[in-house]
Amino acid sequence: MRVFNFSAGPSVPPLEVLKEAQKDLLNYNNSGMSVMELSHRSKWYDEINDECISLIRELLNVPEDYHIILVQGGASTQFEAVPLNLLKTGKADYIVTGNFSKKAHEEAKKYGDIKLVASSADKNHTYIPMPSRDEFRADADYLHITENNTIFGTKYPSLPDTDLPIVSDMSSCIMSEVIDVSKYGLIYAGAQKNLSPAGVTLVIVRKDLLSNEMTVCPTMLKYSVHAKSNSIFNTPPVWSIYMMMLNLRYLKKIGGVPAIEKINRKKAQMLYDYIDSTPFYQNNVERSCRSIMNVPFVTGSKELDDKFVNKATEAGLVNIKGHKVVGGMRASIYNAMPIEGIEALIEFMKKFEEENK
Amino acid sequence: MRVFNFSAGPSVPPLEVLKEAQKDLLNYNNSGMSVMELSHRSKWYDEINDECISLIRELLNVPEDYHIILVQGGASTQFEAVPLNLLKTGKADYIVTGNFSKKAHEEAKKYGDIKLVASSADKNHTYIPMPSRDEFRADADYLHITENNTIFGTKYPSLPDTDLPIVSDMSSCIMSEVIDVSKYGLIYAGAQKNLSPAGVTLVIVRKDLLSNEMTVCPTMLKYSVHAKSNSIFNTPPVWSIYMMMLNLRYLKKIGGVPAIEKINRKKAQMLYDYIDSTPFYQNNVERSCRSIMNVPFVTGSKELDDKFVNKATEAGLVNIKGHKVVGGMRASIYNAMPIEGIEALIEFMKKFEEENK
Repeated sequence: MRVFNFSAGPSVPPLEVLKEAQKDLLNYNNSGMSVMELSHRSKWYDEINDECISLIRELLNVPEDYHIILVQGGASTQFEAVPLNLLKTGKADYIVTGNFSKKAHEEAKKYGDIKLVASSADKNHTYIPMPSRDEFRADADYLHITENNTIFGTKYPSLPDTDLPIVSDMSSCIMSEVIDVSKYGLIYAGAQKNLSPAGVTLVIVRKDLLSNEMTVCPTMLKYSVHAKSNSIFNTPPVWSIYMMMLNLRYLKKIGGVPAIEKINRKKAQMLYDYIDSTPFYQNNVERSCRSIMNVPFVTGSKELDDKFVNKATEAGLVNIKGHKVVGGMRASIYNAMPIEGIEALIEFMKKFEEENK
Repeated sequence: MRVFNFSAGPSVPPLEVLKEAQKDLLNYNNSGMSVMELSHRSKWYDEINDECISLIRELLNVPEDYHIILVQGGASTQFEAVPLNLLKTGKADYIVTGNFSKKAHEEAKKYGDIKLVASSADKNHTYIPMPSRDEFRADADYLHITENNTIFGTKYPSLPDTDLPIVSDMSSCIMSEVIDVSKYGLIYAGAQKNLSPAGVTLVIVRKDLLSNEMTVCPTMLKYSVHAKSNSIFNTPPVWSIYMMMLNLRYLKKIGGVPAIEKINRKKAQMLYDYIDSTPFYQNNVERSCRSIMNVPFVTGSKELDDKFVNKATEAGLVNIKGHKVVGGMRASIYNAMPIEGIEALIEFMKKFEEENK
């Protein structure tokens, strides 16, 4: 029996996609080989790579003046690749809205003059700060933000008001709603929430930003190197990129990003509406900043929270324990979480409330 | 129908391993989840990670004073991680025996005073140079070698005569024969030949070498960081490490590295013996330096070589085209290539010779 998996990542893929991967695992496309053993210099892999990149361009409507790059290492590697590739004046501005943006900010400090423009740490990251235009440095190379905060369940309600190129970590919200790529300088996203199994990271970067990497930048972290080789500079993680292609094909089939955004908003609304309808559960995020991907909630009692997590697991609602810095519960409801999963969760929450209030 | 895949990497995994991965793809170990969606903070993944690392320690007999680390990015990332982690005096010595060692040497030059001690470029890398002890710098931090040269089909017949810590790229020979890990300072290996599908790299490093990384070393490239977190510093490539665990379990079951070494030597011997028995085919590598993993050969005619590759592909012997810098053919016969694949290849070579001599 398959469970409903509320993991913050790696997270649930569409069941149809898993079944297709399973079916073709020993013999991909009549090649007589598994995808896992395809040479990355073969026509089969070229087709997978090209289709994957084309689907990203199509589904996110990525303008032609942006590179689409697939790299390894996770978003954590991008915390360093971003300054190593983009620092020209040596200055960059950061907004800290949670653990991952804090890490990105810390790593960048190794490589330049990094300004912390705003932080939501004062209220345990339950909101998104909105600095005024003049708080940013006009001569900074970029502004870094984390668009959706996986741990704290917040999301930027709108982009910061600045002319700086915006670098956005979209690991936990990529492809979840329609975005205007042209408003960004660079977008990066670890794949393991909405794109693919863990092991690959998507980078979308405006071409004109790539003119001079820092001399200490490792070749493998240079966007220009991967852009020039169409993401086949060295052996890529063939399986992860194949799985991404299958996921994106599926997303296209069900109507693309506008269609999944509608479903995502409905799923999140169902859950928030229920939480807001009862004093038994609380979500402590400022309403305008609520994530539609990660929904943290608590009962107010550590003991009850633990009981909730245990009973939910027994009921087949797994990986719902909140991150240790927030506590309580967190339902990560990425693209592939079906409406039925939300219904089952709300049903369970009602029953748990009845039995424990 | 499955083919015989002679790809230089990603390469063929054991069929039994592929079948097990296929069987469990929707529901791993009664978790109700695919391995691809397991949280990397779950007990299931902890067990996979721990078993994988334990199997590496057991199968290679890795002493306790060595860390075993699993990272992303491929061997190419290690070309830079090695100097960034190990340069203390700022000096390192390199031997160049092919394309990959040349790349490793080039990348290292960005970070220190790097000496090219010897190169086999004078004879198109058909042999392994053996510098005398006094050619190495006594105050260098390490000596870098590429143990098996995938493109040129060469292998070190014995380790260089030096007291420097030896750093060895074993991407294309790891687990293919018994080694004495204590003779090395650091071993690294991209997984996609003998360990796992592409997307993970094994690093084995003597603990005392990790005392001071360069200040510009990205956190994600620091061995100390991954060692301390038992290779779960950030989200690891869960699927690749699961596949590695399955591969290593299989290797253990069939008798471990001594058993596979015996098979590998037999496979290579069969092929070299046949090549040496007829003037129609030539392998141009100095005999003492022949690889048991990659066997390049030519007919001496570009036209015949092309015909060979095409006809072999039609016969289900695929990915046998040689690398462009060598030309001709190359049979990569990693651990998972069955004896039947070698027999089929030799049979085909005989027939091709008959029809074209």
